[in-house]
Amino acid sequence: MIKELRVKTENKYEMVDLTANIRELVKEVKEGILTLYTPHTTAAIIINENTDTNISKDIFNCFGRLIPEGTWLHDAVDNNATAHIKASLLGPSETIPIQNGKLLLGTWQSPMLVELDGPKERKVILQIQ
Amino acid sequence: MIKELRVKTENKYEMVDLTANIRELVKEVKEGILTLYTPHTTAAIIINENTDTNISKDIFNCFGRLIPEGTWLHDAVDNNATAHIKASLLGPSETIPIQNGKLLLGTWQSPMLVELDGPKERKVILQIQ
Amino acid sequence: MIKELRVKTENKYEMVDLTANIRELVKEVKEGILTLYTPHTTAAIIINENTDTNISKDIFNCFGRLIPEGTWLHDAVDNNATAHIKASLLGPSETIPIQNGKLLLGTWQSPMLVELDGPKERKVILQIQ
Repeated sequence: MIKELRVKTENKYEMVDLTANIRELVKEVKEGILTLYTPHTTAAIIINENTDTNISKDIFNCFGRLIPEGTWLHDAVDNNATAHIKASLLGPSETIPIQNGKLLLGTWQSPMLVELDGPKERKVILQIQ
Repeated sequence: MIKELRVKTENKYEMVDLTANIRELVKEVKEGILTLYTPHTTAAIIINENTDTNISKDIFNCFGRLIPEGTWLHDAVDNNATAHIKASLLGPSETIPIQNGKLLLGTWQSPMLVELDGPKERKVILQIQ
Repeated sequence: MIKELRVKTENKYEMVDLTANIRELVKEVKEGILTLYTPHTTAAIIINENTDTNISKDIFNCFGRLIPEGTWLHDAVDNNATAHIKASLLGPSETIPIQNGKLLLGTWQSPMLVELDGPKERKVILQIQ
């Protein structure tokens, strides 16, 4: 089963928690794998804590220190090289095991779309196998 | 097939080689994929060399230089923001192809649980599809 | 279905676009997942833009700044610790959903083998499920 979500981001850097969109999808699945895939080169998917939303800020701050804007070759074309580098490090997908209608996410784990060059409309492909 | 491992880590930073736990599991599988998934936000799964255990030390040293402890917003809550950032970069899962009862791991590849905020008891979910 | 590619790299640092090798493979697949897996500890698989090849250079430059050569414990054995650290961060595999004979790659996404310690002959395992 494949489903496509559309997510509108509102800021340059932003994480969008996808948990609410996926819990319903797996209710009838006895055993399987959910893949979340974003078909973009300046966005990514991660799984981490979203209860303290400061963790997202810490990740973006850390990235800002390590991979600053405006010092890269690709900036001559698009001025977003930093977003491509960060997206390559995080990767466009995550997979989560499903058992008896539930995602085997840990208590603190939330799958999130990571916007690195917003605001934009982003796609997230959800696939159950 | 889904199986859950429990792994007790003994140090703040530690890698636990999972190879011995998974070779047996795939013996009867003609063709498939093994997913290793850890349901935590301050631990991760990687695949790299474990023959020279200094590589694990190098990875932790590198992380220590790039993402130091104690300078992040989430530290006011839990004092482990650095572990969340590192776990987001490494990711909670890896997948390995299986063929004729064998994992298609390279000669030097070992799947490892990466403890970033130990010591703790950690879960690793093994799923074959 | 499992297929193995052999890729000869010619430089120490290099990205090899694998798109042409995989489009043909999925033509008859109604719905599935393609896994690209490289069984090496000093190479990796990423998905990012290859239209402006400067993005690959920016990624290697960034890595060179953050994870310099020659300052690590494993260098006493092999002098390639930096390659192991970078490969651990990027990971050995990526997965791409397939629908109606097409990979659901975005317009700008190319799956690439990342050579971090070349030149070498590298394997890439392609698995469709």
